[in-house]
Amino acid sequence: MTASLNALLAIETIKKLKYTYLRAVDTHDWELLTTTLSEDCSARYDDGKYSFDNRDQLINGLKGHMDSPQVITMHNCHHPEIEFIDESTATGKWYLQDLVFNKDQNWMLFGTAIYTDQYRLDDGIWRICHTEYQRIMETINAPIPATLSFTYSMFDHQ
Amino acid sequence: MTASLNALLAIETIKKLKYTYLRAVDTHDWELLTTTLSEDCSARYDDGKYSFDNRDQLINGLKGHMDSPQVITMHNCHHPEIEFIDESTATGKWYLQDLVFNKDQNWMLFGTAIYTDQYRLDDGIWRICHTEYQRIMETINAPIPATLSFTYSMFDHQ
Amino acid sequence: MTASLNALLAIETIKKLKYTYLRAVDTHDWELLTTTLSEDCSARYDDGKYSFDNRDQLINGLKGHMDSPQVITMHNCHHPEIEFIDESTATGKWYLQDLVFNKDQNWMLFGTAIYTDQYRLDDGIWRICHTEYQRIMETINAPIPATLSFTYSMFDHQ
Repeated sequence: MTASLNALLAIETIKKLKYTYLRAVDTHDWELLTTTLSEDCSARYDDGKYSFDNRDQLINGLKGHMDSPQVITMHNCHHPEIEFIDESTATGKWYLQDLVFNKDQNWMLFGTAIYTDQYRLDDGIWRICHTEYQRIMETINAPIPATLSFTYSMFDHQ
Repeated sequence: MTASLNALLAIETIKKLKYTYLRAVDTHDWELLTTTLSEDCSARYDDGKYSFDNRDQLINGLKGHMDSPQVITMHNCHHPEIEFIDESTATGKWYLQDLVFNKDQNWMLFGTAIYTDQYRLDDGIWRICHTEYQRIMETINAPIPATLSFTYSMFDHQ
Repeated sequence: MTASLNALLAIETIKKLKYTYLRAVDTHDWELLTTTLSEDCSARYDDGKYSFDNRDQLINGLKGHMDSPQVITMHNCHHPEIEFIDESTATGKWYLQDLVFNKDQNWMLFGTAIYTDQYRLDDGIWRICHTEYQRIMETINAPIPATLSFTYSMFDHQ
């Protein structure tokens, strides 16, 4: 198997890793989220506004902000640009589009950002070992328009 | 050619299959849509709210809901997680972001969902043989804000 | 190395090329944008409404429309369908989702379109040599709702 084929296989695996991470965040599946992160994973979200120095801090931090049925989020990462530093270390740039509804506090946020991640292969498994993003833009709508109805939330059906 | 290379080629083909399906839906190209589905393709959209048991039912069902110049949709599927069951069967998870304008009835819908598809290789061609999604969230805006103008629709230029 | 593996490597490179182009546009990085285009690159954006016949025209045209901190854009391209014409020429279809805020003129635009690009391998480097899109739909909101606040723009922090 050539080095190029190995690289393509690892790129596909790293993309799926990121997609699992994002799916876990938006479905509040904290156990699944844990499997995508190295124990020493650090995070600098929103230019460092939300900073975490290891996996436990990161999971607890996200849970603190999001683990409520009143908080509904969409985190979509597009445009993967994956590069290898060596065979077991890679970086990834992504274009984030995020949408947050906070029904308790009656606001919604829409924004975009450029993510820069680091991935590491430990014991044959790729995990996110650092993640950060810098905003392009962020808007907040408050109050949520009276014409908008929430017709479904998975968190009301669990 | 190795099994890994074959898998990567099939993943690329399956992604393009899904993209063709979504492009066909949003451009109301029902003939193109037909080419992406197996004859026995079943669908359970929106947790089974819209259910179809074969390709003809599915196409007719979508046409019934969408084949009007007054209905403008965006169905974007992100975050592909493709897995093989065997060499000619695969599953795919996707993160749907959908937007629907119904100009006749004066509402717009925005939602997200997790798609779970099944794909099958018949006579050398991958097709969708089952598709379903479960919503994360759905919102409806009614009426459409008076400040919003439709400045272009491809269905007004055909 | 097989032809199939070469094709997959080129597809990955072409996708990253497009993502770099889009990141450059939305971050107003005109120097980075230049590296993604062939010198003879032509463009027919929005069914030819914005037409450019070479790279210099294209860059100057985009700068004219967008190079202001008051203009904040999101250009996301999804659903890549890359096909090879020969080993050094390829086409790509993409599903564009774009959002434009013009703060000076107090309007926002949201739309979707199908991109059709051409890519060429010159001296070992893939570049975009033609790009065009046809709208599915376009909406304009004016004025920007008074409930919407811009809480961050990267162009206010440079």
